Amino acid sequence: MFLREDSRQYNELRPIEITRNFTKYAEGSVFIKFGNTCVLCNATVDESVPAFLKGKGTGWLTAEYSMLPRSTHSRIKRYSAANQANPRAVEISRLIGRSLRASLDLDLLGERQIIIDCDVIQADGGTRTASITGAFIALQDAISKLVKLKVLAKNPIKNAIAAVSVGLYQDQLLLDLDYNEDSNAAADINVVMLDDLSIVEIQATAEKTTFSRDTFNLLIDLSQVGIMQLLQMQKAALNNLEDNTTKC
Amino acid sequence: MFLREDSRQYNELRPIEITRNFTKYAEGSVFIKFGNTCVLCNATVDESVPAFLKGKGTGWLTAEYSMLPRSTHSRIKRYSAANQANPRAVEISRLIGRSLRASLDLDLLGERQIIIDCDVIQADGGTRTASITGAFIALQDAISKLVKLKVLAKNPIKNAIAAVSVGLYQDQLLLDLDYNEDSNAAADINVVMLDDLSIVEIQATAEKTTFSRDTFNLLIDLSQVGIMQLLQMQKAALNNLEDNTTKC
Amino acid sequence: MFLREDSRQYNELRPIEITRNFTKYAEGSVFIKFGNTCVLCNATVDESVPAFLKGKGTGWLTAEYSMLPRSTHSRIKRYSAANQANPRAVEISRLIGRSLRASLDLDLLGERQIIIDCDVIQADGGTRTASITGAFIALQDAISKLVKLKVLAKNPIKNAIAAVSVGLYQDQLLLDLDYNEDSNAAADINVVMLDDLSIVEIQATAEKTTFSRDTFNLLIDLSQVGIMQLLQMQKAALNNLEDNTTKC
Amino acid sequence: MFLREDSRQYNELRPIEITRNFTKYAEGSVFIKFGNTCVLCNATVDESVPAFLKGKGTGWLTAEYSMLPRSTHSRIKRYSAANQANPRAVEISRLIGRSLRASLDLDLLGERQIIIDCDVIQADGGTRTASITGAFIALQDAISKLVKLKVLAKNPIKNAIAAVSVGLYQDQLLLDLDYNEDSNAAADINVVMLDDLSIVEIQATAEKTTFSRDTFNLLIDLSQVGIMQLLQMQKAALNNLEDNTTKC
Amino acid sequence: MFLREDSRQYNELRPIEITRNFTKYAEGSVFIKFGNTCVLCNATVDESVPAFLKGKGTGWLTAEYSMLPRSTHSRIKRYSAANQANPRAVEISRLIGRSLRASLDLDLLGERQIIIDCDVIQADGGTRTASITGAFIALQDAISKLVKLKVLAKNPIKNAIAAVSVGLYQDQLLLDLDYNEDSNAAADINVVMLDDLSIVEIQATAEKTTFSRDTFNLLIDLSQVGIMQLLQMQKAALNNLEDNTTKC
Amino acid sequence: MFLREDSRQYNELRPIEITRNFTKYAEGSVFIKFGNTCVLCNATVDESVPAFLKGKGTGWLTAEYSMLPRSTHSRIKRYSAANQANPRAVEISRLIGRSLRASLDLDLLGERQIIIDCDVIQADGGTRTASITGAFIALQDAISKLVKLKVLAKNPIKNAIAAVSVGLYQDQLLLDLDYNEDSNAAADINVVMLDDLSIVEIQATAEKTTFSRDTFNLLIDLSQVGIMQLLQMQKAALNNLEDNTTKC
Repeated sequence: MFLREDSRQYNELRPIEITRNFTKYAEGSVFIKFGNTCVLCNATVDESVPAFLKGKGTGWLTAEYSMLPRSTHSRIKRYSAANQANPRAVEISRLIGRSLRASLDLDLLGERQIIIDCDVIQADGGTRTASITGAFIALQDAISKLVKLKVLAKNPIKNAIAAVSVGLYQDQLLLDLDYNEDSNAAADINVVMLDDLSIVEIQATAEKTTFSRDTFNLLIDLSQVGIMQLLQMQKAALNNLEDNTTKC
Repeated sequence: MFLREDSRQYNELRPIEITRNFTKYAEGSVFIKFGNTCVLCNATVDESVPAFLKGKGTGWLTAEYSMLPRSTHSRIKRYSAANQANPRAVEISRLIGRSLRASLDLDLLGERQIIIDCDVIQADGGTRTASITGAFIALQDAISKLVKLKVLAKNPIKNAIAAVSVGLYQDQLLLDLDYNEDSNAAADINVVMLDDLSIVEIQATAEKTTFSRDTFNLLIDLSQVGIMQLLQMQKAALNNLEDNTTKC
Repeated sequence: MFLREDSRQYNELRPIEITRNFTKYAEGSVFIKFGNTCVLCNATVDESVPAFLKGKGTGWLTAEYSMLPRSTHSRIKRYSAANQANPRAVEISRLIGRSLRASLDLDLLGERQIIIDCDVIQADGGTRTASITGAFIALQDAISKLVKLKVLAKNPIKNAIAAVSVGLYQDQLLLDLDYNEDSNAAADINVVMLDDLSIVEIQATAEKTTFSRDTFNLLIDLSQVGIMQLLQMQKAALNNLEDNTTKC
Repeated sequence: MFLREDSRQYNELRPIEITRNFTKYAEGSVFIKFGNTCVLCNATVDESVPAFLKGKGTGWLTAEYSMLPRSTHSRIKRYSAANQANPRAVEISRLIGRSLRASLDLDLLGERQIIIDCDVIQADGGTRTASITGAFIALQDAISKLVKLKVLAKNPIKNAIAAVSVGLYQDQLLLDLDYNEDSNAAADINVVMLDDLSIVEIQATAEKTTFSRDTFNLLIDLSQVGIMQLLQMQKAALNNLEDNTTKC
Repeated sequence: MFLREDSRQYNELRPIEITRNFTKYAEGSVFIKFGNTCVLCNATVDESVPAFLKGKGTGWLTAEYSMLPRSTHSRIKRYSAANQANPRAVEISRLIGRSLRASLDLDLLGERQIIIDCDVIQADGGTRTASITGAFIALQDAISKLVKLKVLAKNPIKNAIAAVSVGLYQDQLLLDLDYNEDSNAAADINVVMLDDLSIVEIQATAEKTTFSRDTFNLLIDLSQVGIMQLLQMQKAALNNLEDNTTKC
Repeated sequence: MFLREDSRQYNELRPIEITRNFTKYAEGSVFIKFGNTCVLCNATVDESVPAFLKGKGTGWLTAEYSMLPRSTHSRIKRYSAANQANPRAVEISRLIGRSLRASLDLDLLGERQIIIDCDVIQADGGTRTASITGAFIALQDAISKLVKLKVLAKNPIKNAIAAVSVGLYQDQLLLDLDYNEDSNAAADINVVMLDDLSIVEIQATAEKTTFSRDTFNLLIDLSQVGIMQLLQMQKAALNNLEDNTTKC
């Protein structure tokens, strides 16, 4: 039987660390680690909305995902006019935004938007799932401030949300793949669920080998195991009253 | 019970029309219609490969998806330096490329690449699934020419591939959504499968309401019904010997 | 004496085909063929004007010309931030716009603009003349709708307009050059005229050999022969009541 | 009868001033004035050719035209990533390059290129014709140096070349229009001819009113009058041995 | 002892030439030469301010610095979307703007801005110091027009401003370095001072060898010598009533 | 007398924290804090050099400075094709690169380059001086690895280097300004020195009020006090053997 490099069980998450209030200016600021993957998730409250929502009385949430040049083994170039926006980053930005909007009642948010910035400090697989999971906590902190300041009469967060990856590696189901597992996996599935375990997003991709409906179903089952644990850790972090001093 | 605007059954595809050899320069050229959605899919054989594959003796397939400015109700702006590449188009381009690569043995293709251009002439929902389904036929025609010319000793196509959308609209499962259904659907799922019905890609998104595992499973079942029919139509089109004159 | 590849006479147009209502969203939509050259010309009515005309009560017409990547023998790259707008395409866009404005009374159009999109599906020489000739029909259809809807009290179209190329190839005058003739021609002249045969635009270029005033005059005479025929075909197409169903 | 603002005759050029060796680094450097229009024309010898000519043993000439921000009444923005290349400037750059190539035997030039930079210091109409007329002198000076240095065995210049504008203003034919005349002219024609009076390029445009063949022919006759004078002035400037010290 | 190529003393400026009213459209237009370095400095009065100053009743001054492609030994590329804005030019633009703002009482200027364009026609070292020195004269001329027209009740210019470079070359202190000296200098210092000799900006850079505090102090002493002379020449130019006809 | 918000003395640095090995992929990785200013400085060893150094056997160092969107009070936009590279960031990138090159013997480095990435996580004034001071440590760590691996026979670092800001606020000299002091300071001076206290770079700017030579000299004296302390802290951090585990 296959042994994971870090001797995890197939259904075991990597060590998760969550640090709230990492920076001091953002309304919500969370530094989240999924093993060696580290992402800084900042939530900004912006008292304007995109053009298509002006005057409609409803809110919005948008996200931007980016990797620092040396978050990876070999350095990646920064964006510039000469090299177009990284299409992978654009795709992940859209996923994060779409997912977090599912946790919100945008009407209750009022005519303002939340901007989520997920900046990957170190990448070892699962940056998008760490981003979504961490960004939800930053969103919570930002919303709590608006509620405390009575800018919002009612909390617009409907559900907690978390994300995890699952995959197939050497015929073995695996939870929360690291970079090495991910780049060799036959199937690579990212699952985003609410705390009622309803589906927000499933992105299942088979570049090397396709996979059957049965395997797919087992993988989704496995993702639920991980998501339930992540939801617990989010709750614990948000209840941790001692985590209120700025780290940076 | 809910009636579809075009009086289709919930599990019925729109009328599909496939025209091969639509233009004369491309090695494969297919004009495909899913109802009012019309896409021109051209396959180009390019005797070079991206930098990361140089000298490795293996091939590649890449795709570009774009909408003509007036393929939609209101005109959309062309890409320019001032307005960045449309992120949605970038995302769909990547999906088409990834999907079609799953149908190919890239080693058998040799050190060359196939470039797929999917240009949407008219958009009424399902442009990405029409693109994948049509592009496979263009790919087949391009590969057949390489085989006939003995550039390729062996056909690198492993499996046929097709794609369809399914969704949930007013609590009803629907196959092959048109624009109106799609923009009101609670769940929007695009499914890509090989002809052995193994999964190539599932993209399930719930922006308005999330959905349960059970509903999700029923929707994937429904997608298989559509994909099996599309695979039949592809086969018929490729066997149609009369469709060999250029249309344009 | 020199024989044209398609056995046309020196003063003969290629077979012209005009299909109105090619797509369903554009206010005017014409698919035009000059032999193997195929262009989709869509006219959009836009209830705004460029900044320099705001509040002046007069209208505008602008055009954008583009070639699909595989409209040509070898694939051309799509526009992106990294490769600047194709200067040839920019130049032709400006020519189409300038020409069609000459057919309009912009004051009668009121404070709105017509946007013409000419997308070349297949290019075999004469794409700019096919674009102008086809776009005028799309413009007519768009204007007719505005008149029928009583948005316009009076039809702002003053004159029909058509365009054709003439050139010198192996000392022979030629009408409506295809790609092969065009790329070998000594002189390459594009002529745009109104239906009173007054001159809208003449662009005469001699990259290989210069030419005399006498030759130039004979070429302009020849262009008139072609333009008169094209004006007839436009009229016939616009009178064809059976051509009212959407093709795509 | 209509009087020109500067009391010129209808068939009279503005005062033309030509200063050779304006700057010291360029292989050819000419400051040319057509009345208040001032253009600095620099010719650079570049020992490389564009990709499409590599290894073919033949040469090339390319041109770039640009206006200084305050060459005009109101300041124009510099080019930046955010505002695309000025389409008018692109079009004129191409015209200048195409025209000057007609004066050269590119085979005799060998595998190198001449880059012409025309920077408009002050614009009062006719900047493109001043550019072509001045750039030819800069080209001559650059070529003379290559001949003197025996880089070229034979002078590749086949013919002198000059350009002038003609137009129709209040029903009057006019030679060499200034900005005020140009922006009110019914017809605006730029003519480029070799010293044998053969046609290199005619660009005739009628945005306000179209014009007849007869008028057009009279205008081309008038352009010849101007071009013959400009060719004389070029010759005089090139023979002026005293004009050999750098001005700047 | 080291001899300067043009046999200047170590503490001697190059020949300075100042031509006012070089072009006719700009509100201030100065052509300035520091030896072979020639810069055209145009000042534009713009009746708007940047967004961050709207409605604040105070003014602004901004500057843009650019080099013509053939202002240098080998041709430099023009800016385009594909090659990002030259960082050196951006840095110098900011320096010119910041410096000239120090000479102005922006409140007295009212809610408008002055745009300074410094276009280098020929570069032989010291282009930024020539730009600042010349631009101040253009600024004066533009402001004088506003005062004469009574747009401004009070002259907002508080102090004259000038700039010069100093450096260390082969252990010798040098004033106003030309290109050859500058590119071999150990220390390169640009100094901007008001006419009361207070410091506006000092930019001291040591790429090859670092230098001591003592050397640095001697160099700043030397710069004052040059700045005092430049301030005299500015005054003389502004008092030269004969310099009122446009040169170009 | 004026009291600093954080009750520092006028000649006192903010609390400095240096964390080495912050991330695991970069050859050198330092997280540095100057009070609330936090910068991640990563050094990458790149076995190539810029084009102008190819084949010359000598090395290079370049730097890129960037601020995370929410490193500041209000969110700043990420770079994109539509909004040009931030000129301030470009300027600081160039300063960091130029400064660190002064600490290196580029010949001893061999034909390779070091790329320094300074990403500001939180900005409270002095981000450029923190970047230089921290980046030197990252550079040291990267070079040590090359020496240990015997890629380099001899250590190319000639001198340690550090940077600090000084300024004038309400007539008081101040060392190491925070954002609030900096944005209100009359004079703002950044000083970079080697460990022999020779000058690498002085950038002195006076946007609000100019300042005298005497004041300037006192400020440079004050900067030396800070730089000497920073050099001590760098040495201590590099000698701290316990700081060898990755933090992220």
